[in-house]
Amino acid sequence: MSENVIVELASSKNPLVLDCGKTIGPIKTAYTTYGKLNDSKSNAILICHALTGDQYVASEHPITKKNGWWSLLIGPGKSIDTDKYFIICPNVIGGCMGSTGPNEENPQTGKEYGLDFPVVTIADMVKAQKLLIDKLGIKKLFSVIGGSMGGMLVLQWLSKYPACVFSAIPIATTSSHSAQNIALNELARQAIMADPEWKSGNYNEQNTKPIKGLSVARMAAHISYLSEQSLHEKFGRNLQNKNKIEFSFDADFQVESYLRHQGFKFVDRFDANSYLYITRAMDYFDLKIENNGSLIEAFKDTEAHTLCVSFTSDWLYPTSENKVITKTFNALGLNVSFVEIDTDNGHDSFLLNEPEFFDTIQGFLDATYKKL
Amino acid sequence: MSENVIVELASSKNPLVLDCGKTIGPIKTAYTTYGKLNDSKSNAILICHALTGDQYVASEHPITKKNGWWSLLIGPGKSIDTDKYFIICPNVIGGCMGSTGPNEENPQTGKEYGLDFPVVTIADMVKAQKLLIDKLGIKKLFSVIGGSMGGMLVLQWLSKYPACVFSAIPIATTSSHSAQNIALNELARQAIMADPEWKSGNYNEQNTKPIKGLSVARMAAHISYLSEQSLHEKFGRNLQNKNKIEFSFDADFQVESYLRHQGFKFVDRFDANSYLYITRAMDYFDLKIENNGSLIEAFKDTEAHTLCVSFTSDWLYPTSENKVITKTFNALGLNVSFVEIDTDNGHDSFLLNEPEFFDTIQGFLDATYKKL
Repeated sequence: MSENVIVELASSKNPLVLDCGKTIGPIKTAYTTYGKLNDSKSNAILICHALTGDQYVASEHPITKKNGWWSLLIGPGKSIDTDKYFIICPNVIGGCMGSTGPNEENPQTGKEYGLDFPVVTIADMVKAQKLLIDKLGIKKLFSVIGGSMGGMLVLQWLSKYPACVFSAIPIATTSSHSAQNIALNELARQAIMADPEWKSGNYNEQNTKPIKGLSVARMAAHISYLSEQSLHEKFGRNLQNKNKIEFSFDADFQVESYLRHQGFKFVDRFDANSYLYITRAMDYFDLKIENNGSLIEAFKDTEAHTLCVSFTSDWLYPTSENKVITKTFNALGLNVSFVEIDTDNGHDSFLLNEPEFFDTIQGFLDATYKKL
Repeated sequence: MSENVIVELASSKNPLVLDCGKTIGPIKTAYTTYGKLNDSKSNAILICHALTGDQYVASEHPITKKNGWWSLLIGPGKSIDTDKYFIICPNVIGGCMGSTGPNEENPQTGKEYGLDFPVVTIADMVKAQKLLIDKLGIKKLFSVIGGSMGGMLVLQWLSKYPACVFSAIPIATTSSHSAQNIALNELARQAIMADPEWKSGNYNEQNTKPIKGLSVARMAAHISYLSEQSLHEKFGRNLQNKNKIEFSFDADFQVESYLRHQGFKFVDRFDANSYLYITRAMDYFDLKIENNGSLIEAFKDTEAHTLCVSFTSDWLYPTSENKVITKTFNALGLNVSFVEIDTDNGHDSFLLNEPEFFDTIQGFLDATYKKL
């Protein structure tokens, strides 16, 4: 396992050209690695994190001290076996865990970017990842894997750098953010920007923090990550450390207490401006529109082996949206597997202990590795 | 059609005893009526409004100047025919359109109640409605009809005053607020209370208004009222008065613009504290728990003719929850009809132009009226 590493990907003289037309440089990315790259550099797996994920995919988070978000899936002898594969997990640009983002210093002003940070896209994030992969001397990734927004990055890799991807696993994701997805993200952004402590994005400079706004945004997101059934099973109408309702606006129900807790603990590890930028990137994601209205066109050059995974109770990126991707791969004659995991855990399933999901990933990787 | 009428229901000497144990008096209710009560007082229909509804069910709203929220359904010759029936629609207590609520004067202090207003329940709202019906000299309502929270009031009438209800139509509702329902309401409350302009509920006294917080709450609610499909059909990824995305945090997409508009226009007509109190009443609603864990017990004394209605794309109060009610009525041997309307319009369907829904209501009322 590597410690967190930070490398410069583009300089001020040779900056990254973004989809919005602006350039940015220098830019750096923070990333972790696990396992060992083999001599032929053919065993590398790129892990793409979700909206509020980071590079600590299989190691302790420096702030929360919790295990990595996919530590159940990735490790020695695990489904994504670090004894066999070399795992790379970078923090996306626009993020807040060490990669260039709105809370980093703007070299032109010497102050934090804040809202002067250019709006980045999923494609921009992948451009930066490609620079990292180049830097590591890897010509072709054995696999690119990610769930939710991570799945969008996987699809972007397949579309933009088809020669660099031998296999891919987009999980619980979409090829184009739906109106409902955009609506939920807009709700979160409005909650953040409604907080006067947000200070038009300059909260750090003014020594404030939009804790309440970001917390409300996180609460909304959490509701969308869980299914009605999982909320029912987890909490039902159970009361929080009391025998009867108290006729007040305190947290009478466990589910209220849980959401408040999720909201407030989130602000310790995540930056409000990053939340704005990353949700915006997700909303702009639309591989079909970007390819003249044709998803077939988007993936026409890839020959990757693919596994698409969805979860029955995921209403944020439902099976139907994952099937759109699968059908496109099928139409292109790719080697494609599709698995819908039966679970009540909602969108969150891809981060939870779902043995069938883990077995599916392992089976696909093992079989595909033999085809190298 | 009557103008808006305000009557006192309980006095300070003879106050209403609330579920929380406190008393409140004087209390008043604002209500409207349509049509004419017949001599035998047997043609009265009570309409119960939803969370943000009001007494202007079939007449112009005094603030928005829009038609009543059920003006498509209620009127001369319409499905709920005001040439035939006498319609009564009161504003619930805790509301903000003239009935006693948190934005009314507290007689003990001479100042607005604010958070000194006692927490009321659905049962308390119905107690107040019963006082109004008594005042009007009506012994038995021909029907009690309501959707969403209005449906909860309908169920409460059946449970508490079975002798006073000849027929009932609970629509798109539940007998017990689910964990997901509570979560969404808690999100809304936190958004309101996070707004520093809320001033711990004393915003009117301090000449402020928690516009942003209430607006975010409304945005969240709106997302839950619509189905993914209806959002897709209404907005998809259409841009708002522009040809291409602008790489900013302005409203690029129509759905963003729509939600912002819904949020900001709502604050003109609704009170933030009322939003807190009414959502709390909904969260506390659980007819099963209140009746020793038995929904059968809750309705054991009713002999009403009932029609339960749900909408296929309603994920807030899905068909499954409406079926729980229907099955209970069936188990009790009541005369019960159940209709699931096939529509993409989500929970909002009960307020929209849904001809099959209107026909269903009319058919049921006409047939049932003959059984009087």
